[in-house]
Amino acid sequence: MPEIIDILNEKNRIIQKQNGFKYNIDSVLLADFIDARGESLIDLGTGTGIIPILVEEKNNFKNIIGIEIQEDYVDMAKRSVHMNNQEETINIIHCDIMKIKESFNSGIFDAVCSNPPYFVKDNNLVSPNTQKSIARNEILVSLEGLIESASFLLKNKASFFMVHRPDRLTQITRLLLNNNLEIKKMRFIYPRVNKDANLVLIEAKKNAGIELKVLPPLYVYDKEGYSKEIKKIYKEVNIEK
Amino acid sequence: MPEIIDILNEKNRIIQKQNGFKYNIDSVLLADFIDARGESLIDLGTGTGIIPILVEEKNNFKNIIGIEIQEDYVDMAKRSVHMNNQEETINIIHCDIMKIKESFNSGIFDAVCSNPPYFVKDNNLVSPNTQKSIARNEILVSLEGLIESASFLLKNKASFFMVHRPDRLTQITRLLLNNNLEIKKMRFIYPRVNKDANLVLIEAKKNAGIELKVLPPLYVYDKEGYSKEIKKIYKEVNIEK
Repeated sequence: MPEIIDILNEKNRIIQKQNGFKYNIDSVLLADFIDARGESLIDLGTGTGIIPILVEEKNNFKNIIGIEIQEDYVDMAKRSVHMNNQEETINIIHCDIMKIKESFNSGIFDAVCSNPPYFVKDNNLVSPNTQKSIARNEILVSLEGLIESASFLLKNKASFFMVHRPDRLTQITRLLLNNNLEIKKMRFIYPRVNKDANLVLIEAKKNAGIELKVLPPLYVYDKEGYSKEIKKIYKEVNIEK
Repeated sequence: MPEIIDILNEKNRIIQKQNGFKYNIDSVLLADFIDARGESLIDLGTGTGIIPILVEEKNNFKNIIGIEIQEDYVDMAKRSVHMNNQEETINIIHCDIMKIKESFNSGIFDAVCSNPPYFVKDNNLVSPNTQKSIARNEILVSLEGLIESASFLLKNKASFFMVHRPDRLTQITRLLLNNNLEIKKMRFIYPRVNKDANLVLIEAKKNAGIELKVLPPLYVYDKEGYSKEIKKIYKEVNIEK
């Protein structure tokens, strides 16, 4: 499948497949939402490597790992990292989230993040392009397995950052609680004024007390196109892509 | 304690204690949020009777019950209902939410609502005015007991409507799920733009499937005072009170 190189910002570019799963606003918003102290971050299901590449700029992590199960994406993400001279900080590793315990020790990361597949596996609905399907549907990873892995990898009191769909929020909350992850911050993303939220950004802390903040809403569009805040988040990212 | 009569709208007034717990915006927003088919509604911890009095206007319930543990509030709410000629629809009953099973059968209501105490009991923080404390702190009712009672009272697929603080949302979600109540709608209330949410309206359905909607945010104030939507909700309610 032919590849294209997209410009992310002044410093960084990213390799994507012309007809494969491309990065989307969800990953950009999640990268912007991640705010953690510490040295190490792991991105579960990194795909093109978009989140490590964007996060490397704005946080002080010295060690960012992106794991990905699809080998050709691992290869592509590695080449993007190399192209951006981010190899000192970012490592892309071929690894299955569901077998995380075979590859990593418990409690070693200062932060974990993921933009997981949003939809429960449904064979009837799965897209004919299998790589797109894997990114969108819980074919190779379940929400439960993902959250279990995140909790396993986190240090005590460290944070898991996730983007997901609000319609699964009760399920997400239950799974987080079952894995000792207490939601500390939520931010709902609304496509525009007077519409229901279609995304939610979540920060959940391992073994933390109960005290949840629901941050101001984020609107993607206003009357004139992208909202001011989205433009600010995209800043020098090439939003035309 | 001296009483005052506040004007709610063109038709209805409400008796309140000059220095006791008065109705607030939370109850008005909850009354507005309640949208259910069916004949019967029960309000758990009705206080002054504000929610039954406001809901009677806008829904088609033929039988609205407000239960309250504090006898003088029961008496006061009854007098308000009488004053408004709402006795045909609204019944105020002296009853303890924690002993609901002694007074009501299971699965008999088309809707349950509550504006419960928001704070976990903390002897150090309890207000010297005990009646205010009972309305604000979980002294006579726990969140767990309230949600258990709501689930007990509801018919299958019927809705529980609640207002609470977002900082306890993970706890609320867990308790609702434990009692077979699936959140179907949430609406976050923000005091104004760029502030965190300080209230959340929740509709949870008994034995329903997973599919949560997060409705557009509601702002209480804008630059010119109450927001348009709040003014619309208050409509003819005397907002100066």
